Amino acid sequence: MPGTPLLESYAAGRWYAARDEGRPLLDAGTGEEVARISSSGLDLGAMTTYARTVGGPALRALTFHERAGLIKAVAKHLSDPATGIKDELYDLSFRTGATKRDSMVDIDGGFGTLFSIASKGVREMPNDTVYVDGGLEQLGRQGTFVGQHVYTSRPGVAVQINAFNFPVWGMLEKLAPAFIAGMPTIVKPAAQTAFLTELCVRRIIESGILPEGSLQLLAGSPSGLLDELTVQDMVAFTGSAHTAGLLRTHTNVMHGGVQLGVEADSLNCSVLGPDVTVDDPEFDLFVKGVVAEMTVKAGQKCTAIRRAIVPTALADQVVDAVSARLAKIAVGDPRHDDVRMGALVSLDQREEVRKAVQQLRSSAEVAYGDPDRVDLVAGDADRGAFLSPVLLRAQRGAVEPHDVEPFGPVSTVLTYDSLDEAVELAARGKGSLVGSLVTHDPEVARTVVLGLAPWHGRILVLDRDDAGESTGHGSPLPMLVHGGPGRAGGGEELGGVRGVLHHMQRTAIQASPAMMTAVTGRWTKGSPRHDDGVHPFRKSLAELRVGDTIASEPRTVTLADIDHFAEFTGDTFYAHTDPEAAARNPLFGGIVAHGYLVVSLAAGLFVDPDPGPVLANFGVDNLRFLTPVKADDSIAVTLTVKQITPRSSADYGEVRWDAVVVNADGDPVATYDVLTLVAKTWPQDA
Amino acid sequence: MPGTPLLESYAAGRWYAARDEGRPLLDAGTGEEVARISSSGLDLGAMTTYARTVGGPALRALTFHERAGLIKAVAKHLSDPATGIKDELYDLSFRTGATKRDSMVDIDGGFGTLFSIASKGVREMPNDTVYVDGGLEQLGRQGTFVGQHVYTSRPGVAVQINAFNFPVWGMLEKLAPAFIAGMPTIVKPAAQTAFLTELCVRRIIESGILPEGSLQLLAGSPSGLLDELTVQDMVAFTGSAHTAGLLRTHTNVMHGGVQLGVEADSLNCSVLGPDVTVDDPEFDLFVKGVVAEMTVKAGQKCTAIRRAIVPTALADQVVDAVSARLAKIAVGDPRHDDVRMGALVSLDQREEVRKAVQQLRSSAEVAYGDPDRVDLVAGDADRGAFLSPVLLRAQRGAVEPHDVEPFGPVSTVLTYDSLDEAVELAARGKGSLVGSLVTHDPEVARTVVLGLAPWHGRILVLDRDDAGESTGHGSPLPMLVHGGPGRAGGGEELGGVRGVLHHMQRTAIQASPAMMTAVTGRWTKGSPRHDDGVHPFRKSLAELRVGDTIASEPRTVTLADIDHFAEFTGDTFYAHTDPEAAARNPLFGGIVAHGYLVVSLAAGLFVDPDPGPVLANFGVDNLRFLTPVKADDSIAVTLTVKQITPRSSADYGEVRWDAVVVNADGDPVATYDVLTLVAKTWPQDA
Repeated sequence: MPGTPLLESYAAGRWYAARDEGRPLLDAGTGEEVARISSSGLDLGAMTTYARTVGGPALRALTFHERAGLIKAVAKHLSDPATGIKDELYDLSFRTGATKRDSMVDIDGGFGTLFSIASKGVREMPNDTVYVDGGLEQLGRQGTFVGQHVYTSRPGVAVQINAFNFPVWGMLEKLAPAFIAGMPTIVKPAAQTAFLTELCVRRIIESGILPEGSLQLLAGSPSGLLDELTVQDMVAFTGSAHTAGLLRTHTNVMHGGVQLGVEADSLNCSVLGPDVTVDDPEFDLFVKGVVAEMTVKAGQKCTAIRRAIVPTALADQVVDAVSARLAKIAVGDPRHDDVRMGALVSLDQREEVRKAVQQLRSSAEVAYGDPDRVDLVAGDADRGAFLSPVLLRAQRGAVEPHDVEPFGPVSTVLTYDSLDEAVELAARGKGSLVGSLVTHDPEVARTVVLGLAPWHGRILVLDRDDAGESTGHGSPLPMLVHGGPGRAGGGEELGGVRGVLHHMQRTAIQASPAMMTAVTGRWTKGSPRHDDGVHPFRKSLAELRVGDTIASEPRTVTLADIDHFAEFTGDTFYAHTDPEAAARNPLFGGIVAHGYLVVSLAAGLFVDPDPGPVLANFGVDNLRFLTPVKADDSIAVTLTVKQITPRSSADYGEVRWDAVVVNADGDPVATYDVLTLVAKTWPQDA
Repeated sequence: MPGTPLLESYAAGRWYAARDEGRPLLDAGTGEEVARISSSGLDLGAMTTYARTVGGPALRALTFHERAGLIKAVAKHLSDPATGIKDELYDLSFRTGATKRDSMVDIDGGFGTLFSIASKGVREMPNDTVYVDGGLEQLGRQGTFVGQHVYTSRPGVAVQINAFNFPVWGMLEKLAPAFIAGMPTIVKPAAQTAFLTELCVRRIIESGILPEGSLQLLAGSPSGLLDELTVQDMVAFTGSAHTAGLLRTHTNVMHGGVQLGVEADSLNCSVLGPDVTVDDPEFDLFVKGVVAEMTVKAGQKCTAIRRAIVPTALADQVVDAVSARLAKIAVGDPRHDDVRMGALVSLDQREEVRKAVQQLRSSAEVAYGDPDRVDLVAGDADRGAFLSPVLLRAQRGAVEPHDVEPFGPVSTVLTYDSLDEAVELAARGKGSLVGSLVTHDPEVARTVVLGLAPWHGRILVLDRDDAGESTGHGSPLPMLVHGGPGRAGGGEELGGVRGVLHHMQRTAIQASPAMMTAVTGRWTKGSPRHDDGVHPFRKSLAELRVGDTIASEPRTVTLADIDHFAEFTGDTFYAHTDPEAAARNPLFGGIVAHGYLVVSLAAGLFVDPDPGPVLANFGVDNLRFLTPVKADDSIAVTLTVKQITPRSSADYGEVRWDAVVVNADGDPVATYDVLTLVAKTWPQDA
């Protein structure tokens, strides 16, 4: 019997161990067996059913804010030093070949992603189960028929098939958006590093924070999993274009309505601007960027720079500078303090990279490094999957650098003579996750970025101004989309709320305003208003209802008011003060009240002054002045509760009010949303 | 030689006629030959190359507003009675089997779609070539590194493969969004009704309004067309799930990065709410809806109601009422004034529908109509593709109504006993373009709509309140998304700007604020501000530049100011007037200035009062009060040009200003966007 543990799957509410011995997973740096993996006998149909019938309903019973709160709680639990989980993960991560710095990207990066997405979920989504998308569309002249787009949760399961290179981050960055969207997850990690994912999932499950059924783990073969999926399910895949192609041909993807998102390795480029000289700080930034992307995670990043596109005149200097920096990179056992670059994930993977380098050499020469030998600071050169960084320099017109991806510490320098050529070379990658441009010239930035943009999911513009805070070419960020067109797979993940919405269905709802209010939970213009005689400023969140309203008495705006306001505020704009000049204004034709006067007087009309549950007015949205107010016009305002958003972290919440100011003819003078904070109960100790 | 014309393709700048005779296209009502179709010998590679090298660059040299202006010009040209084009199209449309009312949906509906999308393009997109998506993301604490999502135009070609049923609308609703997005179009109409599409395209080309290469027509076989496509190209397909499946398996779609959008026929449902009695107006609305969807376009609509889901207790009444109405539908030659329902598009199509009805009869009985005979008001029963409307009534648990689509005047009644069952039955359609619910109960609306939403691209809630303005179950609207999950194809079209953005690439840009300003053309917070000593209110649009700024002197806000403002406006909220109560406010801890006072005083600080190019302040966006202003605090404001949007239809444009009010400590007190109208030149006759 082998001495290493068999990884278990977490399936349908329990940990499952296969009956067979499984196949061994090896330490990348030592070749020792770390664990074994098998999922034989696992009932995949039971897993998807469990996700749909147990996890999904539990998740969808929660609001977006509640789901985000649980994701934040998981992030806190995992990163809390008291739990010791982070240290455990770091220790085990060495066995994937990762240095401590590599693990930061994976482990701390993963936790940070949870925090960030949870925060977006609270700040940018409603405390509800329906997400309202875009503005109200008036579909008829009378206003009795309106349209509104909403996003709702799919009653399916999200299957997440991850790559080996980020066993923690890759799992968490997919889990969080799916979870907040209300979809239960089945995680399928890549076998090579599944032991690290398994540990992290195990600690999450043990915490009991997430609803049962919302997270399951398949440690083993995904064979047959797609057969279990149907129209409301989705697969998010990160990995090779080859495997992506196999998934795309599955009948349930092609004909069964299963949604497939792909994030595939791509031949990302970094362009050095023609404005940069060797003496500019941008030259060093470029060189450092290339070296960092070659060596972090030993270049096993789908976002690494595979193509360094530089002005022909600077090519020698770039090659020399990159080579000089690479020469200082110590390779070896990732546990060793001096080591800057660890091992590739496996000997097989190293063989793949060597093959790719061999292909690249048909149109490029090796400028630095030797794919067949490497000096180690520490470690076992025979059993560890170590590889030297390799810098190639391509011939003009070379084809291979745009087609062959060495998934390791390898990059190729290509040269260009014009900005058009630089853009054209970048485009030959046929679609990438990320590109970068190092320049300090705004004209170059606009031209190159707009040329590269249709080919990329993310573009970094690096210069002396942002270098200090830049997170670098290779780092996807939770608030920015990750994914790219074409070869990069065509998928899109993350991007804050965007990544959540990718897990939901957008639907256009057409209804009367009253029915729209019922469906969305937000008061819709044209819906009935409720005036029960109690001023809504006297109601706490517990008492306030969407549609509660206060309609003010009218007030006349006199010429004296306008004069006085101009003098008092100093806003003596001629349209408020000079009758002759105002008469010549093409839009007014005479003296008009200040817009700010109108909204100030409106507040005077709707405010209930005594202390009460309304704590503050913290903002105004979408204020539009629609009809000029002239001297002696009368105005009145109606204020209606549009949306109520309790904050889970405070004893108050946000109330958005619809405000409409009308003149004596009933024409709208100004429309806007007033944003207030309102206590959950009143008096507050009630 | 046959006497009817051979349809020509418009390819690479000229009209192309195939050398062979082509195959005949028949009048749906009479069986007479209308035209012949063939594209043999057509160089499809030349078409795609022409689109990419001639049409694409011409389009992308225009701004979104300019492109929208051309679409509007086409709509005007086509609908202008003086051109006679509309009459020509209506006349020819009879030959597709369509009644005049059917043609309104297709022809006027198509023109209306052009107008609507053009209008959205001007009102909701910038007068630029880059679309900015969402807010700025601060990526570092110092603000030197920021993120912004943008959409840019793909340098590819949009291939549009349309269904036979809406030869004009189907072409125009796809053309307009692609065009505004900057993508040249190749239209491939369905053969059966290609003569109508060809006429419309010919008239557009003849008008000379659109840039050469931005619109081409393939009248004939699409065989080989996908072979010409690559990563920046896209295919928008409307038609059968079967053909969609073939497109999905094309290697350029699966592995070549060609983006495929599918809008496929689906088994749409309409649900009658359990609250409705036979005496309610909603009962009649439901019955009328079912009959309209069965008979408009002879039921050949991908959005038609195939499944009428009704409470078991009302099933007899529904069947009787629908049957009674169907009995009044006169079928026959669409040219005849009394005819309410014309012919199916072809005898083959009628055979398909008869087969589908036969399948449905395995679990449903025919409640009205006979698929094998129909009484005609006028027309040739032998050669015309006429069919009686057929209403079926399904057995409990029937499977076929959820799987078999009769693409003709056929609908099936199914029954439910609970809301859950109604939702479950709807979901058995495996994803639909549209569903409707007829109810007057808000609770029913919320439950059913949220249950149906993940399965639908659009949902109509119909009741007595919106019926007068409702556009009906079957009508996609340009401002609402069209498409649905699963069986409906998973695509999404229209939806105003959403449909434009589906043709563009979203990219996350990371840069310093200055570089972000250069890339997006909008001033980004943290970018340099330009103060050349001239107040920006003195500059016309021709002179104003993004980044132009005015920084005011400070002004002290005294307690007297606050008292006075409260008295003057009537806004005597305790936080501004009652020191003791204000002290107890958890957010302020003492008297604070009104937010409206702060922005009013800020305007007094930044306004340049004399007549000049700034014509009006028409609104304020995103006003947030960040730090309370207490008595004797001093405030100052900085106003910076953020975005300039000239209007093509006026001698002024919109200028969006970034406004920041700070206190003496430099803390932001209020941030907002000020919206003004500014003359293009000044003096205006300059």
